[in-house]
Amino acid sequence: MIIVMKSGAAKKDRDEVLKRIRELGYKPHVIHGTTRVVIGAVGDERGKLVLQSLESMHGVENVVPILQPFKLASKEVKREASTVRISDTVTIGGREIIVMAGPCSVESEEQIIETALAVRDAGARMLRGGAYKPRTSPYSFQGLEEEGLQLLSKAREVSGLPFVTEVVNPETVDLVAEYADMLQIGARNAQNFALLKKVGQTGKPVLLKRGMSMTIQEFLMSAEYIMSEGNQAVVLCERGIRTFETATRNTLDLSAIPVLKGKTHLPVIADPSHGTGNYHYVAAMAFAAVAAGADGLMIEVHSDPEHASSDGPQSLKPAKFALMMQKLQLFAEAADRYL
Amino acid sequence: MIIVMKSGAAKKDRDEVLKRIRELGYKPHVIHGTTRVVIGAVGDERGKLVLQSLESMHGVENVVPILQPFKLASKEVKREASTVRISDTVTIGGREIIVMAGPCSVESEEQIIETALAVRDAGARMLRGGAYKPRTSPYSFQGLEEEGLQLLSKAREVSGLPFVTEVVNPETVDLVAEYADMLQIGARNAQNFALLKKVGQTGKPVLLKRGMSMTIQEFLMSAEYIMSEGNQAVVLCERGIRTFETATRNTLDLSAIPVLKGKTHLPVIADPSHGTGNYHYVAAMAFAAVAAGADGLMIEVHSDPEHASSDGPQSLKPAKFALMMQKLQLFAEAADRYL
Amino acid sequence: MIIVMKSGAAKKDRDEVLKRIRELGYKPHVIHGTTRVVIGAVGDERGKLVLQSLESMHGVENVVPILQPFKLASKEVKREASTVRISDTVTIGGREIIVMAGPCSVESEEQIIETALAVRDAGARMLRGGAYKPRTSPYSFQGLEEEGLQLLSKAREVSGLPFVTEVVNPETVDLVAEYADMLQIGARNAQNFALLKKVGQTGKPVLLKRGMSMTIQEFLMSAEYIMSEGNQAVVLCERGIRTFETATRNTLDLSAIPVLKGKTHLPVIADPSHGTGNYHYVAAMAFAAVAAGADGLMIEVHSDPEHASSDGPQSLKPAKFALMMQKLQLFAEAADRYL
Amino acid sequence: MIIVMKSGAAKKDRDEVLKRIRELGYKPHVIHGTTRVVIGAVGDERGKLVLQSLESMHGVENVVPILQPFKLASKEVKREASTVRISDTVTIGGREIIVMAGPCSVESEEQIIETALAVRDAGARMLRGGAYKPRTSPYSFQGLEEEGLQLLSKAREVSGLPFVTEVVNPETVDLVAEYADMLQIGARNAQNFALLKKVGQTGKPVLLKRGMSMTIQEFLMSAEYIMSEGNQAVVLCERGIRTFETATRNTLDLSAIPVLKGKTHLPVIADPSHGTGNYHYVAAMAFAAVAAGADGLMIEVHSDPEHASSDGPQSLKPAKFALMMQKLQLFAEAADRYL
Repeated sequence: MIIVMKSGAAKKDRDEVLKRIRELGYKPHVIHGTTRVVIGAVGDERGKLVLQSLESMHGVENVVPILQPFKLASKEVKREASTVRISDTVTIGGREIIVMAGPCSVESEEQIIETALAVRDAGARMLRGGAYKPRTSPYSFQGLEEEGLQLLSKAREVSGLPFVTEVVNPETVDLVAEYADMLQIGARNAQNFALLKKVGQTGKPVLLKRGMSMTIQEFLMSAEYIMSEGNQAVVLCERGIRTFETATRNTLDLSAIPVLKGKTHLPVIADPSHGTGNYHYVAAMAFAAVAAGADGLMIEVHSDPEHASSDGPQSLKPAKFALMMQKLQLFAEAADRYL
Repeated sequence: MIIVMKSGAAKKDRDEVLKRIRELGYKPHVIHGTTRVVIGAVGDERGKLVLQSLESMHGVENVVPILQPFKLASKEVKREASTVRISDTVTIGGREIIVMAGPCSVESEEQIIETALAVRDAGARMLRGGAYKPRTSPYSFQGLEEEGLQLLSKAREVSGLPFVTEVVNPETVDLVAEYADMLQIGARNAQNFALLKKVGQTGKPVLLKRGMSMTIQEFLMSAEYIMSEGNQAVVLCERGIRTFETATRNTLDLSAIPVLKGKTHLPVIADPSHGTGNYHYVAAMAFAAVAAGADGLMIEVHSDPEHASSDGPQSLKPAKFALMMQKLQLFAEAADRYL
Repeated sequence: MIIVMKSGAAKKDRDEVLKRIRELGYKPHVIHGTTRVVIGAVGDERGKLVLQSLESMHGVENVVPILQPFKLASKEVKREASTVRISDTVTIGGREIIVMAGPCSVESEEQIIETALAVRDAGARMLRGGAYKPRTSPYSFQGLEEEGLQLLSKAREVSGLPFVTEVVNPETVDLVAEYADMLQIGARNAQNFALLKKVGQTGKPVLLKRGMSMTIQEFLMSAEYIMSEGNQAVVLCERGIRTFETATRNTLDLSAIPVLKGKTHLPVIADPSHGTGNYHYVAAMAFAAVAAGADGLMIEVHSDPEHASSDGPQSLKPAKFALMMQKLQLFAEAADRYL
Repeated sequence: MIIVMKSGAAKKDRDEVLKRIRELGYKPHVIHGTTRVVIGAVGDERGKLVLQSLESMHGVENVVPILQPFKLASKEVKREASTVRISDTVTIGGREIIVMAGPCSVESEEQIIETALAVRDAGARMLRGGAYKPRTSPYSFQGLEEEGLQLLSKAREVSGLPFVTEVVNPETVDLVAEYADMLQIGARNAQNFALLKKVGQTGKPVLLKRGMSMTIQEFLMSAEYIMSEGNQAVVLCERGIRTFETATRNTLDLSAIPVLKGKTHLPVIADPSHGTGNYHYVAAMAFAAVAAGADGLMIEVHSDPEHASSDGPQSLKPAKFALMMQKLQLFAEAADRYL
């Protein structure tokens, strides 16, 4: 951590800061600049955010952290890329691009089984579908809950696809974990620390979505929450951030993919359906995500989007999805990967 | 809802849309524009977000909602301003500006009692303090939990100030509600719908903070979640939104105050401590919030910010807080209110 | 345009609005909703933003525009994609992906000629280089000005590559146009309307960069400024928008590419160098841009980035650029394009 | 500047960095941390942004600037607050709060004179009005140009109020300066460096508006451009930044006022009309701006907003403006200022 003193700060103030740095277990290192003094505090900053509190001291202008605050998620701790095993047949983070597809919400047995078969035949390796839905409005459809989990399990049986589904409450995590192959933390719960800890205590792989206004560093801190409870099977998912642009529902931040790949060993996938909010743009952004280095994709597919209980406008119909998957093959090959 | 058809959309497509609008229980109303057809769908849109799914239909360019999706929180439902009663002596939303002050985290009995007395003597009407802390890092201090609640209760006894404290997990809401006078939903949980529903089921007043990237409409939808469970005692708190500006920790959006006052009957307060993240700016923004029409303020006060377990840089020392309260009096009077 | 009346607005207010709509040359169309009246105003909204002023009228809640305000740039006016001819050998907007490469600033004859040859040999079809630099600090290097234009011309002679360079002042547009093959409007000048008009009056192709906080609609309005002066040869360039994320210099909004392709016939390219601000991420985002449908790329290449006068951190060295171009070939083919 | 080396960077890389730091005229200072080496580079960083280029060097993780890059605008250079004299009777930056009011655009002699008298009688000390309008659409009203300047001059004669008006093109700055008492740089031109230099070369006071996506540091760099040309009479104006929130046209960042007051000696005013884009919110935000420490306000007043050529929805009618000014008096007094 670097402590920048105000120009003209008193020696007394500086001495107080040095004393406090030592108290906190760091070794101070003074640099006399042309207009001010800068103090380097040597020691492991991680887990000691308290150092930031030096900003309250007299004569201190600001405090600049140097180390990144995550450990387990960091490439410095583990150089080689991690893979996350979902089932006997599906592993995320290898050369294969894993596509997860399915409806936003599970609505009926027919719907989910039909969709599972359609996306499998088009090349998807996992099924997605919501049983517990975090909806902005209390008056919107909130999901079929446990019945939805049972329908997803049936669809898995019929199609052979493992499934990922969202958890929204620590109280139901164990229940969902009995059914699902992978637990999803949605964007709105990406800093719901009670929920993160709880999924960290299960043995299940976790798909962690980036919060709408989360920096990449905060995103990795949320992964760290899960990992620090003992669960290393975390897959990160870029799904768009909130910006001033309204032409898309969110702004899919594809540069997050190479940035994350530089900082963490965890696999990274992208969700162009939520990222754009409009089915017209999903294929282009799916291709772009794979070109940018994504290890997989999450795509919303619905056989009848006009009648969907949620997120119709961003869902692809099965035929369009199949077409997209064919073209995706070419981009996967260009990236030296395969579908 | 207004459905805008594409320029040159086929009559067949338009007929499909009209049919679907009727199926959903709305009455369509066709307007022939110079370059395209626009369809008004008359009916109560609230609770029927499914209409948005018309965007998936052939020939539809986009769908524009007209009504705001909240009811109970809306001024259309209740014209006169609501007040929220916290205790025999404290009510929020009347002519009195209610200041809630105290440390970010409860750290010890001495700390919280000393601070409670200091802020009371300076004019605060409620005590704030965190027992369960939602921290970005799993390695940061996570709060004293139930012990913290007990210390807050002691401080209440000694000072006479009712207290507000944060809840972070549906599982502990009942426990916190046994101790606290008011439950706080923090910014990171502002769309944790499981938690919102749970606090809606208690009888306790709720302080709902705006999420970092929440629009004002989404903020009111979160209030609606609480209210739709039967709890009308909701106070809204503007605490800064995330923008590109890094000179402050967040950007305190004071214009949210008059905007909210135009849309809802619920009381609105502001938190300049989290809003700026820097104690230097807290007083100026507290004055500004009251001038903009806030019904109260939440201010972080710590007797020894350099040694605080969290949020030191934005905490005022008791003496500075007392000075701020004196000046605040003048601004309250200018706003035809009192402290 | 749709005018939404307040719930309970008086008939008198509504009549005033109807009268005003007619005065402005529109035909009003009243829809009686369940809680309020909505008025459609039929007529060509473009060029009549004055309709927005109805928001000031009594009883009006808000005014919702329906038509997009651009004409010449719109796909509604011209369905087929436009191509922009730069020279006998280079045309943007066809099946060929056009890569423009070179240093941020022209620094010396040796530097620009060496770089021109290196990028040409790696497959670039145009040279880029700044002679007039819009720098955030008045104390930073401001460019070689006319001397820079002369050096770019020499580099064109030697390499055969046409060049694009930035204009920053209406007063020097004619001078720059004498030398350059394409005029660039930088992000900071994207709403400098005096400059837009001036380049619209030259016959030169224009590369228009998206402003840092420009919506896609505003971006197209800036193109409209140029086109409305008679110059249709406009190429749009996505170069990153400003968001809260600080891990990259800007957030490259690749979804802008399919969105723009849906709204305009103009060619669209991307600038991953400014978009990310970090050479580590340039190749990944270049691949992604082509996968998303870009018609070209602008890439900063510098033979000695550590000694660059500007933008060193985001510049590729020639060898890395050549490697990137090889891989880019594969992505271009996957997109059914070529380099 | 602090150069952070990668964990495990080679000694050879570090030596190269040290050598380069010395070449650039700085004195390096090595700190050995627990996991990496950090190098302080001592010397005046301002005007040497080239140091950032060290980020391209092998083994460098990132480069953190310590000094703020502005000089003349900085409080470190001039401790006491500056005042800017506009005319014999008007000075900005003293105890008096200066209110500038008038229409967005000058439309006719009657309009501007009538408005000038009305705002003067209500307590405004300066007239505002646009003769050259930077409009997003080329089809919108672009201003009366020189005729507008003549009408403003007449209104000054009749009312005694000095006026401020916008400049949009370096070519017309001298012409505008012949008429106006103060030159305004609008938000869209806040990084139009050619224009900033040009107004810096006139002797006229300048009102510099913050760009929509400008950080406070960049805002001060734009002031530095003007000042570095010899013109110290700069007044800064916060007018709202672009965020995700759409309930207001922009988000008025009032915390920018205390932040600016801490960094610069220049006067700071606020524009709640553009900041909110809605006349309903103007008064509340005007009061808040004064409470936050603003030295003045810029307010749009139009006698017939429904017929305004531009910005009708955010304009106050004269009677509402007069009412606002009465209440503003109370807030000015609370802030120990006067109107």
